[in-house]
Amino acid sequence: MANAKQITLYTAKVCPYAHRVEIALNEAKANFKSFQIDLHDKPGWYAPQVNAASKVPTIAYGGPDVPPETPSPDSTKLAESLVLVELVADLFPLSGILPTDPVQRAQARFFIENISTKLIPTYVGFVLRGESYENIVQAVKTLEPLLPELGKFAVGDQFSIADIATAPFIARLFLSAENEFGTFEADQGAKLLAALSTPQFAKWNAYKKLLFERPSVIATFDKEFVKAGYAKRFPRA
Amino acid sequence: MANAKQITLYTAKVCPYAHRVEIALNEAKANFKSFQIDLHDKPGWYAPQVNAASKVPTIAYGGPDVPPETPSPDSTKLAESLVLVELVADLFPLSGILPTDPVQRAQARFFIENISTKLIPTYVGFVLRGESYENIVQAVKTLEPLLPELGKFAVGDQFSIADIATAPFIARLFLSAENEFGTFEADQGAKLLAALSTPQFAKWNAYKKLLFERPSVIATFDKEFVKAGYAKRFPRA
Repeated sequence: MANAKQITLYTAKVCPYAHRVEIALNEAKANFKSFQIDLHDKPGWYAPQVNAASKVPTIAYGGPDVPPETPSPDSTKLAESLVLVELVADLFPLSGILPTDPVQRAQARFFIENISTKLIPTYVGFVLRGESYENIVQAVKTLEPLLPELGKFAVGDQFSIADIATAPFIARLFLSAENEFGTFEADQGAKLLAALSTPQFAKWNAYKKLLFERPSVIATFDKEFVKAGYAKRFPRA
Repeated sequence: MANAKQITLYTAKVCPYAHRVEIALNEAKANFKSFQIDLHDKPGWYAPQVNAASKVPTIAYGGPDVPPETPSPDSTKLAESLVLVELVADLFPLSGILPTDPVQRAQARFFIENISTKLIPTYVGFVLRGESYENIVQAVKTLEPLLPELGKFAVGDQFSIADIATAPFIARLFLSAENEFGTFEADQGAKLLAALSTPQFAKWNAYKKLLFERPSVIATFDKEFVKAGYAKRFPRA
């Protein structure tokens, strides 16, 4: 799809927030430039010229067609993953990632709010602070009434911003658990997987499978790269 | 403006989150029913029939025209203040509260994200946990680059979702400070007001003034009611 103006995405393969925007741009078939920011060694120009908070993702929108590493002051710099996912939906209405029905839109945003406040904190606590995997299991139980029927996306037949906001976190959660990547004890990943594989989580597992089969999710998740990064960050003796 | 379907808002005058939705509906000149939930004595039907999390605001949308205290299972129950503000913008595009330009929309949502993560936690900490007023002053300093030029709203000439998300919190912040309502020491409200009244906060004060003059903000803020509620909740010896 042709864009009216140039789009440059500053991103990082390991970052689930940045991943959201990559999925949205992929769904939109957007024409854009992408630049990888090494989160452990950010280029000196990034904070002063692109994002004062020095975070990814950021989109530089409009302005002249310049190489990403020499950003123009004439492009508009926009940040925050959910803001950017909605921006992509607004710029590319034919992408279909934002439901046209206002009620479905509200339901998609409500789904995202719940993923953000209930699931993501337990995932972060598990991986970064070694908190119990049971918090994640509990969060999935809490989310159960919101999870879609088998074979459906978060708010219906259509893959939407709600799925985009969720997929990167579920992908990394399973990568961590399957490989015991995190600050938790070395068998807790396996225990989490066992706990989530019971029949009571049929909706969760079907939804996860559907997300992982989505071409835009597959195309934007460099699993081996992320795995190598986690292996380095969370070495097991 | 005529609605396609009925709207019932479950709200509470003291709640800044619910206030956001009231402002949005006022801007939209929406036709809606409103029901006050006493947050200290919620009706027994509220959680099971309207909002399982038992929070306000909630909108019951569509379904038959029933009294708010006997909600119909046939209306769609929608929650979360920012989700509902966007819903009102989507249902009433002529309200003008959602900018038509995708970049301005992104800027409005980015503004809200910053108010939510930088200002609101310092206000809550000050009033509910007696934390230093200096955290609020520091938050306003951090927000300074985002604040509009004198005479402008958050993202331009138009009153938008960004202003709607912000006004209820600034209104309550000043009400608390002016009346020393909170768990903080009894002179800290005055100190906060003094600190924020210096010329370095000219943009903040001009923006605050503009918000407080907005007819939709005035019409939806029952200052005496909120004041009485705070006086009861935070008595001074």
